[in-house]
Amino acid sequence: MSRPVRVAPIGVALLGCGTVGREVLRLLTEQSGELAARVGVAVRLVGVAVRRPQRHPEVPAELLTTDTVELINRDGVDVVIEVIGGVEPARSLLLAALRAGRGVVTANKALLAECGPELYAAADATGADLYFEAAVAGAIPLLRPLRESLAGDRITRVTGIVNGTTNFILSAMDSSGAGYGETLAEVSRLGYAEADPTADVEGYDAAAKAAILASLAFHTRVTSADVYREGIAEVSAADILAARELGRTVKLLAICERVADSAGTEGVSARVYPAMIPRSHPLATVGEAYNAVFVEADAAGALMFYGQGAGGPPTASAVLGDLVAVARNRVAGGYGPRESAYADLPIRPMGDTLTSYHLSLEVLDRPGVLAQVAQVFAEHEVSIMVVRQTGRALDQALPSNAGPSNAGPSNAGPAGAGANLVIVTHLAPDAALRSTVDKLAGLDVVRDVVSVMRVEGEVK
Amino acid sequence: MSRPVRVAPIGVALLGCGTVGREVLRLLTEQSGELAARVGVAVRLVGVAVRRPQRHPEVPAELLTTDTVELINRDGVDVVIEVIGGVEPARSLLLAALRAGRGVVTANKALLAECGPELYAAADATGADLYFEAAVAGAIPLLRPLRESLAGDRITRVTGIVNGTTNFILSAMDSSGAGYGETLAEVSRLGYAEADPTADVEGYDAAAKAAILASLAFHTRVTSADVYREGIAEVSAADILAARELGRTVKLLAICERVADSAGTEGVSARVYPAMIPRSHPLATVGEAYNAVFVEADAAGALMFYGQGAGGPPTASAVLGDLVAVARNRVAGGYGPRESAYADLPIRPMGDTLTSYHLSLEVLDRPGVLAQVAQVFAEHEVSIMVVRQTGRALDQALPSNAGPSNAGPSNAGPAGAGANLVIVTHLAPDAALRSTVDKLAGLDVVRDVVSVMRVEGEVK
Repeated sequence: MSRPVRVAPIGVALLGCGTVGREVLRLLTEQSGELAARVGVAVRLVGVAVRRPQRHPEVPAELLTTDTVELINRDGVDVVIEVIGGVEPARSLLLAALRAGRGVVTANKALLAECGPELYAAADATGADLYFEAAVAGAIPLLRPLRESLAGDRITRVTGIVNGTTNFILSAMDSSGAGYGETLAEVSRLGYAEADPTADVEGYDAAAKAAILASLAFHTRVTSADVYREGIAEVSAADILAARELGRTVKLLAICERVADSAGTEGVSARVYPAMIPRSHPLATVGEAYNAVFVEADAAGALMFYGQGAGGPPTASAVLGDLVAVARNRVAGGYGPRESAYADLPIRPMGDTLTSYHLSLEVLDRPGVLAQVAQVFAEHEVSIMVVRQTGRALDQALPSNAGPSNAGPSNAGPAGAGANLVIVTHLAPDAALRSTVDKLAGLDVVRDVVSVMRVEGEVK
Repeated sequence: MSRPVRVAPIGVALLGCGTVGREVLRLLTEQSGELAARVGVAVRLVGVAVRRPQRHPEVPAELLTTDTVELINRDGVDVVIEVIGGVEPARSLLLAALRAGRGVVTANKALLAECGPELYAAADATGADLYFEAAVAGAIPLLRPLRESLAGDRITRVTGIVNGTTNFILSAMDSSGAGYGETLAEVSRLGYAEADPTADVEGYDAAAKAAILASLAFHTRVTSADVYREGIAEVSAADILAARELGRTVKLLAICERVADSAGTEGVSARVYPAMIPRSHPLATVGEAYNAVFVEADAAGALMFYGQGAGGPPTASAVLGDLVAVARNRVAGGYGPRESAYADLPIRPMGDTLTSYHLSLEVLDRPGVLAQVAQVFAEHEVSIMVVRQTGRALDQALPSNAGPSNAGPSNAGPAGAGANLVIVTHLAPDAALRSTVDKLAGLDVVRDVVSVMRVEGEVK
């Protein structure tokens, strides 16, 4: 096989120069010798497109431009790096770049999750490369392993902590026992949350990443709209406490799962919600703003990838890694792996997805309560795994030799006080579980639903 | 950019059919549809070379051959997968394959660590691909991230638990408090150690992996012979107990570090030895036979990769991932990243490497002992970070207002009993630390050196 020889430098156009862009600029300059050695030819920055050039004294004036389209199409540009963020104008610009045959490196998760298929199609039409390692979990090398290293295996499940802000909040709640509102305020004060934290705390950011992960893991086009989503704003100090009492901790999880229906037809479930996981699970020890992704595959078994999920330098590191890959492909005259959507699995609705619930109920402390509660579960064909109670109701409601073996000791409360029932279910369709909770909340004997949360990661 | 179109299947020759080979065979068959979708053309097994065909009823007879060289050179072979292991004949066979322009996928760490440069050169001469993800840490996607994802970053240190057998033994010793010999016997009985465990317990296996990791991380040719090596056979129950008392645990670490001497000249330190790490370190929770590699890079920060480091299916998963990459390169007419040894850093000898020691000494319980011990450290220009004692010697030897602030409470032993001194040093050249220990062991006041072990991972 003869190898083509290229001596012209690889020309790079940088779109955007915010937190990540400045770090990319720094690494391009500081690592220029290393980059040349790794790529085989020099890597040369052709221009930097920004909206307000006067705000960027750190960029040599002759490189700055406000005419992004002209920069993309300028002679000598091989690779376009996009760190603008958001859907437009990033979408139009990257489509123009791909149509012009430029390789594209982007850190834009929102764009990928919403318009991935359109971008892939444009890349395919000209054979241009489209790389986006930085879009999920910052510097953690995750997308490349998923789409390359595990390419000969069958991934069954991806479970990730992919949003640093929410992990920081939940870790702090777990340590302090404080409530959500109070903790968010403190985390904002420390600069770990955006001024408008909606995208993080409502799970939109995690859902975009789940869409990208599910697409790669299952060779199926999954967009943000396909991802079921709940944020952490409803997580209470009571939930955290309940988790702790069960040897669990609460994490906002992005879950991408290969599922089969009763007829054996495969589908994809992609979902984001806070869930209780055992403290012995590798994801449970991921603290502060760290990210980690737990991958299960048929042959490889369980893998975990851990690191910093955000921040200028880690994101820039991932961008540079992609730049080297695209540049190498250019030098070699080839291109990287393309989109792989051949499996084209159907998206399974959340209601049909099998999950397990933890419930903590405050009930009247009188005979017959457990029987009524159990009856509601039975009506919805939901099987109970564990019941634990404090207060007298449970013992009085059941013959003494028929109590569930997992029931905890009975601590009689003060006269007139309610009893507390903690229930963990077996796997059941999520819709059935939600109906069960709604029906329970309406029972006369249930004073309050103290905590409801899904349970994940019980079986390795 | 026009894209070449290939319709002929990718032909695969499998050399060896042991534990890993059988799993590769199974995945090639079971995943043939998926592989074709991922590669773009069918992947076809051309032949399987084994020494004793009659022992392989699981392989279709028409595929079996004993003539390995003929199989490698057979028409239609694009990729050679080597899972024979050991240096020869694997080395000669893979050199023949690369010279014939075949892509090579191998899981052979011993071969890579010993003859890597020779194989790389052969691959370069014909532009053939040489992939070996399975050679280090089984299914954990590690080499590809190191040589591709972090290609735009500067790796400063790689610290890995890369041998499952020794991690299993040390984890068991940590749980049970039992000694090394007893634990090895139990682990062997359970089938977690080879009949001859020398390569594992003496650190040869980990050293081979350290050589591969250091080569990739630092763009420098590092072979097994360059790696300083100590195994775990000397780790005692006393060491494990001492670590536990200091909030640490003992792990066999493969450490690859970018170091600078006093003149600022960069070099590479590659070493394998048991060390104490804090229980809060991400590597401390890696139990049983799992592997994990902790990577530190300038921009990316701290990353960790975790998973099963050995076993047929995980290793086969990594082999298949490489096969898909090489096959894709063939279909695209390109090739993957080449060896990168441009940095060519010198290997730093162990004696010059800065390390920190933990020592536990049984000393005579009488005044002046600490002064004598401290004098030995001073003579070797080794600075002490912490001293802790049980017994009376320390307090009596020092004026009451001059004791080190970290000294623990004094528990007076029974009359005539020795005192115990626990010392942790600051970083110092390893040779100076070893001389210090030798000198201490010869002091009249030192009854016994109970435990000596390096300390790692103190600073994140």
